[in-house]
Amino acid sequence: MNSSSYNIVSLIRRKRDGGNLTKDEIQFLIDSYTRDELPDYQMSAFLMAVFLRGMNDEEASAIAYAMLHSGKVMDLSEVPGIKVDKHSTGGVGDKLSLILAPIVAAAGVPVPMISGRGLGHTGGTLDKLESIPGFDVNLDLVRYVEVIKKHNVVFIGQTEDIAPADKRLYALRDVTATVECIPLIASSIMSKKLAEGIDALVLDVKYGSGAFIKDIEEAGVLARRLVDIGTEFKKNTVAYLTNMDQPLGYKIGNWFEVEESIECLRGEWPDDVREITLLLSGAMIWLGGKAATLNEGIELAIRHVEDGSALRKLREIVEEQGGDTGMIDNPENYPKAAHQAAFTADADGFVTGIDAYSVGMASLELGAGRREKKQPIDPTAGIILHKKLGDEVKKGETIAVLHTNKADMLSVARNLMQNAYKLGSAAPKPGVLISRTVDAKGIHPFDYNEVPALKT
Amino acid sequence: MNSSSYNIVSLIRRKRDGGNLTKDEIQFLIDSYTRDELPDYQMSAFLMAVFLRGMNDEEASAIAYAMLHSGKVMDLSEVPGIKVDKHSTGGVGDKLSLILAPIVAAAGVPVPMISGRGLGHTGGTLDKLESIPGFDVNLDLVRYVEVIKKHNVVFIGQTEDIAPADKRLYALRDVTATVECIPLIASSIMSKKLAEGIDALVLDVKYGSGAFIKDIEEAGVLARRLVDIGTEFKKNTVAYLTNMDQPLGYKIGNWFEVEESIECLRGEWPDDVREITLLLSGAMIWLGGKAATLNEGIELAIRHVEDGSALRKLREIVEEQGGDTGMIDNPENYPKAAHQAAFTADADGFVTGIDAYSVGMASLELGAGRREKKQPIDPTAGIILHKKLGDEVKKGETIAVLHTNKADMLSVARNLMQNAYKLGSAAPKPGVLISRTVDAKGIHPFDYNEVPALKT
Repeated sequence: MNSSSYNIVSLIRRKRDGGNLTKDEIQFLIDSYTRDELPDYQMSAFLMAVFLRGMNDEEASAIAYAMLHSGKVMDLSEVPGIKVDKHSTGGVGDKLSLILAPIVAAAGVPVPMISGRGLGHTGGTLDKLESIPGFDVNLDLVRYVEVIKKHNVVFIGQTEDIAPADKRLYALRDVTATVECIPLIASSIMSKKLAEGIDALVLDVKYGSGAFIKDIEEAGVLARRLVDIGTEFKKNTVAYLTNMDQPLGYKIGNWFEVEESIECLRGEWPDDVREITLLLSGAMIWLGGKAATLNEGIELAIRHVEDGSALRKLREIVEEQGGDTGMIDNPENYPKAAHQAAFTADADGFVTGIDAYSVGMASLELGAGRREKKQPIDPTAGIILHKKLGDEVKKGETIAVLHTNKADMLSVARNLMQNAYKLGSAAPKPGVLISRTVDAKGIHPFDYNEVPALKT
Repeated sequence: MNSSSYNIVSLIRRKRDGGNLTKDEIQFLIDSYTRDELPDYQMSAFLMAVFLRGMNDEEASAIAYAMLHSGKVMDLSEVPGIKVDKHSTGGVGDKLSLILAPIVAAAGVPVPMISGRGLGHTGGTLDKLESIPGFDVNLDLVRYVEVIKKHNVVFIGQTEDIAPADKRLYALRDVTATVECIPLIASSIMSKKLAEGIDALVLDVKYGSGAFIKDIEEAGVLARRLVDIGTEFKKNTVAYLTNMDQPLGYKIGNWFEVEESIECLRGEWPDDVREITLLLSGAMIWLGGKAATLNEGIELAIRHVEDGSALRKLREIVEEQGGDTGMIDNPENYPKAAHQAAFTADADGFVTGIDAYSVGMASLELGAGRREKKQPIDPTAGIILHKKLGDEVKKGETIAVLHTNKADMLSVARNLMQNAYKLGSAAPKPGVLISRTVDAKGIHPFDYNEVPALKT
């Protein structure tokens, strides 16, 4: 059947009524949209129907396929080795890419990393990297291949060539209340990741109060969709469901997260960052064929931190991409924001909750984030937490320090921090960070006994 | 609260999640859309959410109110009497407006009638009237008031001034698979009817195989919405659920329906047309204050047909609006289409089903209808049925005669007629035409005993 003969209204109607579309029909919709032959108003009606009626696995794969092939698909076949990337559904303080990419590259696994920018309460890897003076994320695709061949790692931004349909669709979803839709999220993530030219993918799907998915079961549904799409495209894909009930680590803000990443690569880890970074690095090394098991992958990751090779790898890639390596060697020399203000406890107690969204918004107000695309950000702004979940605090004690060049935003940020921190009379029971593994065979409880290397 | 401060995405999101919008929020959406401040793609996402999540009575009234006030609301206060109109959800062969408007006007009740054009398988009152040579439906609103004052009846088309938001919204629904949505249908109908300046409204809500709503219960839901909105706007509103399992009357096509209307006004009625026309005319006369009960209204309607005053009223309005009254007096003089072809029975039997949709499409193919707005139509084209539900036919006997100027379309039309007519070995049990009454007090079974005047 000639794809141009599909009737768009009847496709929308079928999805509206709970039916399914074929691969060809979805390809037709995405192609027509990319070619400006299908107007936004029809696509947005379709997206709302998808939001409320769902999509089956075949449809989600088909939309990922169509978006992937709307642009350039990188060919990294000339780069030796199994190319592995990771994707996280994101969260406040999530600087894990900056730490694990050098670790995994140091272990000999190529990591082609195409990252995004921050928006709203969440930060973006590109913005964090650009806080290093001179660091250039705008490499063209020729340089992209060149750099990964040379260093086993490269950091670039999504170019116009990669999955342009996804870019347009995402912008439309953003203004039509159709963002939080699992098959659309899954196909959007996978179309971009598959375009990188990877062979395998490790996914960090977060759940909890600080994640965009609160519920572990729903996170499991997303993880299965992601893994199913990866498997369909013959990429070895594994996902972990990890808890995010508070920001990751202690530092939030662009440079602050680079700084904390350097500390981690020096072996000075916050517990939560260490556990999840080692898990994901270990999995990448394992899928990259440099370890026989996940546990061996984690052991290798630890070794490359301990012997300094991971930190050297970070320095190497910063140098290659034009960044000031002096800041990697002596992060204490980085300029400071003009204003630092303590956020203190108004009573004695234990930290029983930290709403990551409010902390992220406080960081944004201080200058570290943006409300709208292309808004400039302040690399020196951010928040350093002194207390995390379960910590005891005394009245007047510093819970966090706010850093900003906009003194007038301190009171707004302080109010947000006040909303974020809940104090109680007893420490909450510590939860488990890694809950489940999702692979091509299904969803399984995560077994800490199989990864003794993770223990501190 | 200043309406301009609503966040459109959060309103779409609330409806998407099954919540309700306030009157002010709906007003804001419609106003913004009318002012081009809300793009089509956001409105279509909202419409799809409404389609799948529904709207409560307050929301449907609010959207009707907002659309009504997006344009001019006619003021007929200078026209004496209670102004009454009728609206039908439409069907094949439904020429009832052409018959009942003159009857009701002859009974002294002003009937301000703003009608539409045909699209797809259904015809439109305007197109039928325009088959009368010279008949002008494009009166401005000053003439509209003038004509109704003079004749108690006027026929015009929807102008740009009337409910422009409805016009835009309808066009958008048409291309986004959001047409068949009861609260949107109800608010669309009522915004246009309320803009006419009426005091009361009679509604003919059709159900059955030939209606766009097949199921009587669903037709009841639409009728209640319509009546609720009318009541909310303090218009005396009553709806009847009437069965449409076959085309109404024997003639389908633009001039053919005028011709059959003239026959009815001469007292030569097909049974189904007579029953429903008298019901609706009687109700209009009753709501118009010229009869104490529905039955008395029907008696008056019959009297005005029998004494010739209704036919004279039709002649009068045709003359006033520039039409050739010779065609009313001598309809047999009307030009004929170049080709007439019999559609005959291929077996002996009884007519057990007539799919009105296929008959309507056959009529369209012969030239009587249009697939797209503004397509020209042929007033002489159409179909004259010789057999209706329950009639006995012999093999080779004429079931219908097809009239067209496009000889090449005869085979297409014949195939559609073949699909439309089902023959069986026994006549089906005749059904009831009028099933329920819906008024401000609720929905009630229609009691034929209360309207003895309806009996032939």
